[in-house]
Amino acid sequence: MGKLDCLVWLGLKQGPPGSTIDGVVTWRMLIAEYLGTLLLVFFGTMLAVAPGNVDPISGPFAGGLALACIVQALAHVSGAMVNPAMSLGFFTCRRISFIKLCLFSLAQCAGAISGSALLKAVTPSTNHALHAMGSTTLAPGVTIFHGICIEIMITFLLVFLTVSATDGRRVDVTGSIPLIIGLAIVACSFAALKEPPAKVKWRGREARRIRS
Amino acid sequence: MGKLDCLVWLGLKQGPPGSTIDGVVTWRMLIAEYLGTLLLVFFGTMLAVAPGNVDPISGPFAGGLALACIVQALAHVSGAMVNPAMSLGFFTCRRISFIKLCLFSLAQCAGAISGSALLKAVTPSTNHALHAMGSTTLAPGVTIFHGICIEIMITFLLVFLTVSATDGRRVDVTGSIPLIIGLAIVACSFAALKEPPAKVKWRGREARRIRS
Amino acid sequence: MGKLDCLVWLGLKQGPPGSTIDGVVTWRMLIAEYLGTLLLVFFGTMLAVAPGNVDPISGPFAGGLALACIVQALAHVSGAMVNPAMSLGFFTCRRISFIKLCLFSLAQCAGAISGSALLKAVTPSTNHALHAMGSTTLAPGVTIFHGICIEIMITFLLVFLTVSATDGRRVDVTGSIPLIIGLAIVACSFAALKEPPAKVKWRGREARRIRS
Amino acid sequence: MGKLDCLVWLGLKQGPPGSTIDGVVTWRMLIAEYLGTLLLVFFGTMLAVAPGNVDPISGPFAGGLALACIVQALAHVSGAMVNPAMSLGFFTCRRISFIKLCLFSLAQCAGAISGSALLKAVTPSTNHALHAMGSTTLAPGVTIFHGICIEIMITFLLVFLTVSATDGRRVDVTGSIPLIIGLAIVACSFAALKEPPAKVKWRGREARRIRS
Repeated sequence: MGKLDCLVWLGLKQGPPGSTIDGVVTWRMLIAEYLGTLLLVFFGTMLAVAPGNVDPISGPFAGGLALACIVQALAHVSGAMVNPAMSLGFFTCRRISFIKLCLFSLAQCAGAISGSALLKAVTPSTNHALHAMGSTTLAPGVTIFHGICIEIMITFLLVFLTVSATDGRRVDVTGSIPLIIGLAIVACSFAALKEPPAKVKWRGREARRIRS
Repeated sequence: MGKLDCLVWLGLKQGPPGSTIDGVVTWRMLIAEYLGTLLLVFFGTMLAVAPGNVDPISGPFAGGLALACIVQALAHVSGAMVNPAMSLGFFTCRRISFIKLCLFSLAQCAGAISGSALLKAVTPSTNHALHAMGSTTLAPGVTIFHGICIEIMITFLLVFLTVSATDGRRVDVTGSIPLIIGLAIVACSFAALKEPPAKVKWRGREARRIRS
Repeated sequence: MGKLDCLVWLGLKQGPPGSTIDGVVTWRMLIAEYLGTLLLVFFGTMLAVAPGNVDPISGPFAGGLALACIVQALAHVSGAMVNPAMSLGFFTCRRISFIKLCLFSLAQCAGAISGSALLKAVTPSTNHALHAMGSTTLAPGVTIFHGICIEIMITFLLVFLTVSATDGRRVDVTGSIPLIIGLAIVACSFAALKEPPAKVKWRGREARRIRS
Repeated sequence: MGKLDCLVWLGLKQGPPGSTIDGVVTWRMLIAEYLGTLLLVFFGTMLAVAPGNVDPISGPFAGGLALACIVQALAHVSGAMVNPAMSLGFFTCRRISFIKLCLFSLAQCAGAISGSALLKAVTPSTNHALHAMGSTTLAPGVTIFHGICIEIMITFLLVFLTVSATDGRRVDVTGSIPLIIGLAIVACSFAALKEPPAKVKWRGREARRIRS
């Protein structure tokens, strides 16, 4: 990797024509990532502050389909990655620059915190402790090693699908890319998320809060 | 905004070429909005007159997928907004005129009332009081402030998605727009709607009847 | 309607160029309608011969998504109407001829009977009486008038959507038409179908066996 | 079938221009089939190692939507058949060669075994015996004949749909083919899979492990 490449990789210089790395970061993009992550965390964890037990179906559909809508609404602005793991995947494939990765991750973390704070503000405080505001814990018998491995697998499916489906060189992708990305979250949540029947115990998603 | 613009904005004058405001309102459009809203309210609240408890999954899918079908069937006639909130969003983005907003809202309200009346006519009257014909109430502990905030958020996601996805300047939208709009309703319903386990208490959707 | 038109309407004569009525009926088409209806009834009622209670979610998705697959697989052969009500809708819009309507309906009825017979042959006979092989009955308190009205409404949504979405003059239809047709069945089933918690009582779908 | 055709059929010779048989097998393709089947088995059976009862909804969506994502991510490399039954279908329609069928099936079986092994490695061993790691058994009263017939029907729907939807001569296929293939699995699972309420008894899917 020459000096020129390195500058492009960092995002300090525009890539040559045909380069997939797009280093320009605008405020518009950062706002889109901030807003998208805010909405994703807000809708994805809203069920955790509902009174009573949560059925195991509502959560995956609420989070996954909300993501599909958010990606559809914002993809033309910033790509709507709304997740540092996703941005890292795009960076690894040399499709965004290092600076873009850093700034997007900051905007996404700020959005995630804002989403949780907003949810806290607009729901009864008596429910906040019920399911720990949607933060995930390990199910009984699941070790930290298990949890990390499962997180790796579900994040792999999501990022692998997204990077592949949005590859500009593919000409065979028909249908809605935002929808299939949202349905990836639905699939992963149904596979890996275990709603607590009585106590608050989820399986293998302890990194969700950190990831988004 | 000059005098000309104001007339266009009101819908009293056709916009210049390239203008996004389309002020022409035909009977065909009003009938489409009336019929679409009638069908949406009819299918969206049909479960509320079923005997026995309602599971928390059927409602979101019945309402959201019915909306997807209605939008698919009527979008080429009037845009199939079937919701004053949606029409207001399009008006705010200067994509429909003030007169269109008013007439569409009237047709939508008439359709919503007709849908509920039709549902009342074709279902056993003994079930009508079970779930208040599908009108939503606040869950225990949820204040009016909470409810309004949650309504603002779910309506924001729906209208934001729709206005963005139907923007004629976007060239990256593939897949079915009616489907993603319907799935937005599915996501919002799963996140914000709490089916009552024994008593009639829903969360944060008290404005549904008014909205549609 | 002149004599020429009448012959076209009947299907005895090819319509003029640009005519939407396509009177040619081939064995290929009849086999496609037969096979499609067989598969639809087989998959749509398979849950009714499962032992134990049926959850209210599986049925709508099994039937609706199977229909989406069937339409996707056979649409280029015969249109994959797989339902006399659908064929009647296309006939009413003058998109198929009277002869096609009659022959398709016969093939569909034969397919429906074959589907049920096949299901009976490949499932334990002890389960056949559990849910009456999937035939629908009126829920308690629902009169025949109610049932017919609800059937009219759900069949209207399905046929209206299909006739509108497949209109060749529309240029705004993106996404999968088979999928949205299947999801219409999902929406209608979730809205109108009430799975029995203990006894066999469904709501408002007594005409399903006749329709398909 | 002449000698030339036979060599093409075997995959030892490139077909003439316009031939649908593509006999070239690359390591890239085999890796894609291996990885895809690994992911499918991993996500499709992950619920079987969750503690406690499994609801009847999560399984079909986890498996079907994961397949949709996998097909979307890998279809441009190898076709993402991820199932010997699917490869056999494509071979029967003379769209892949005999050598490709054999090598793909080997890669798929290796992937399936790896997926199960990986799942075993990253989940608590106390749960492995709960649902037999997702292998399917016959429900009470269901004979081997019943099970085989139901397997034939659900595999028929899946392979028939896929072979038809991916036919290059069709020009009417819009929307996402990976999604409709995944939804075929959802439909078949909802129709044929009976989650055990207390004991481990599934219906009619004993061949799943073999198939994938």
